[in-house]
Amino acid sequence: MPPPVPGAELCEPVRTVDAAERFKMRVERERPGHAVVIGASYLGLEMAEALVRQGVETTLVERGDQVMRSLDPEMAGHVQDAAEGVGVRVLLSTAVEEIRHRDGRPCSVVTSEGELPAAHVVLSTGVRPEARLAEEAGLRLGETGALAVDDHQRCLGADGAFAAGDCVESRHRLLDRPVNIQLGTHANKQGRIAGTNATGGYIAFPGVIGTAASQICRYEVARTGLTERDAREAGFDTAAATVKDRTRAGYYPGSGPIWVKLVAERGSERLLGGQIVGVEGAAKRIDVLAAVVWSGMAVDELELLDLSYAPPFSGVYDPLLAAARQTRKALDETRS
Amino acid sequence: MPPPVPGAELCEPVRTVDAAERFKMRVERERPGHAVVIGASYLGLEMAEALVRQGVETTLVERGDQVMRSLDPEMAGHVQDAAEGVGVRVLLSTAVEEIRHRDGRPCSVVTSEGELPAAHVVLSTGVRPEARLAEEAGLRLGETGALAVDDHQRCLGADGAFAAGDCVESRHRLLDRPVNIQLGTHANKQGRIAGTNATGGYIAFPGVIGTAASQICRYEVARTGLTERDAREAGFDTAAATVKDRTRAGYYPGSGPIWVKLVAERGSERLLGGQIVGVEGAAKRIDVLAAVVWSGMAVDELELLDLSYAPPFSGVYDPLLAAARQTRKALDETRS
Repeated sequence: MPPPVPGAELCEPVRTVDAAERFKMRVERERPGHAVVIGASYLGLEMAEALVRQGVETTLVERGDQVMRSLDPEMAGHVQDAAEGVGVRVLLSTAVEEIRHRDGRPCSVVTSEGELPAAHVVLSTGVRPEARLAEEAGLRLGETGALAVDDHQRCLGADGAFAAGDCVESRHRLLDRPVNIQLGTHANKQGRIAGTNATGGYIAFPGVIGTAASQICRYEVARTGLTERDAREAGFDTAAATVKDRTRAGYYPGSGPIWVKLVAERGSERLLGGQIVGVEGAAKRIDVLAAVVWSGMAVDELELLDLSYAPPFSGVYDPLLAAARQTRKALDETRS
Repeated sequence: MPPPVPGAELCEPVRTVDAAERFKMRVERERPGHAVVIGASYLGLEMAEALVRQGVETTLVERGDQVMRSLDPEMAGHVQDAAEGVGVRVLLSTAVEEIRHRDGRPCSVVTSEGELPAAHVVLSTGVRPEARLAEEAGLRLGETGALAVDDHQRCLGADGAFAAGDCVESRHRLLDRPVNIQLGTHANKQGRIAGTNATGGYIAFPGVIGTAASQICRYEVARTGLTERDAREAGFDTAAATVKDRTRAGYYPGSGPIWVKLVAERGSERLLGGQIVGVEGAAKRIDVLAAVVWSGMAVDELELLDLSYAPPFSGVYDPLLAAARQTRKALDETRS
């Protein structure tokens, strides 16, 4: 959705592969030049990185006080460091006031911190479910603005209608309420389930826990479950810990830094979420945490989980196990 | 342990870093030359690869009919392919009859398939727990020949004695019986638990499921839980499926093959084990399966697990999810 800023409606959306190819060719033709990316989500960061690597001077403008709101601030800080490391200029707490055009093309972006030259403007300010057609047909929308469906992907408010993907709500297993998380992983699973159920089968969609990964500059960036901030806002009594570790055994060549943050619930001591930023192995490690969060495993059990070890892949204690041990200590601390 | 073969007792064991350095220097000084590695476990394969990469003509001799008995035969076949691909000669179903020496150095290995020249001989024919001292002190050994301990690492048969590591038995969570799996991951955890309990603390070791990973030639090779063969031998009614997939999204550069085999139990439909061979991401993916096996998750739940997705790390359906779907079909097949 374009942000409610004068000039935003004139920016060409990049929603298809063709549009992306056109955009890329224009950047290549006119480089070096200046670009402004609005919104520091993972997509904004990926676009800013791509532009900088094309030799374009790129500023990433973010209204909030951190990049990647899907991470806690200190983990997002590592991602910002990496983006700045490849040459992206990051402006936080900066509001966009106008996108100026000349001869039908962007020329600058006016922000609360001044005017930035911009031959290219990328809007990455979030998504909204496109549910108009369904709404007009009488289907019910949920609180998120997406279509309300039951766990068999049946639309509420109409017999025989099924829906799946970016336009529907999914139940968040930890928050126990509907969320609208627009990811291909959910869309694919739900589409298959909707199709199966619509044709006489019977499969339930078990919900989501917010697992996601991306490659941003030198880091794999990944998260699952709840961040510390999200967990607290949802009323969980939390303990959290972060470790900085190495991705391989200390003596093994090619090792690099990895940060793992875990968030646990006091009382139940189950893992509520994890965030990982590292030069390798973050995306697949987050899937381990996803299985742990999904199954309701407690921190003590994670700490003693039988994970693999070989020098090219981790130290004897995988960073996940080291993080579990620190989280154990964090759980203990306020007990005494 | 040296195999019961004439001449084996003359081979120098490579048990320490110093011994390995001496061995490496001798190989470098005398290359190209010939080497014979006896025993095609992961260590034997790693040694054979290292020797071939030093320019030494290397034959890997294995008594059994496959390399890596910790995998099912068809998965082990990919590993053998990779070893042969870098130039290792693999002889299966081949018995070693004598290791001949001249002037105090190996000169050949006599096998059931003929005599092989060998300036270097590496024995990798398995390990036995070294529990003599403990046995003489009156501590009880288990059926595996390792020290019997309870789940707090207390030795059976003696008050106040604790033991941990390669010399002890651990409970296998799926087989529900003691096993002796000599891995640093278990030794480290058990050592900490023994120390904690010996000094007034109270932690239980929750057992093992046989997770392991190694880098062999171009492949990461990893396994957890039970192989199909092991599960059947233990009396489980099993269904299994294997998928060949790609490690990244199809259009993303740097993608390569990955095979995932899953073994499930009929009835409970829980996952009993997994094996992965692939050019990347096998080691961390096995840890996802380890968490799934550990927590007793069923195949249907794995298939819909909220795993991460981004093009550099997998297709939208991770190979694990694709394998779960095939295993679901395998479970269905003999029902009808």
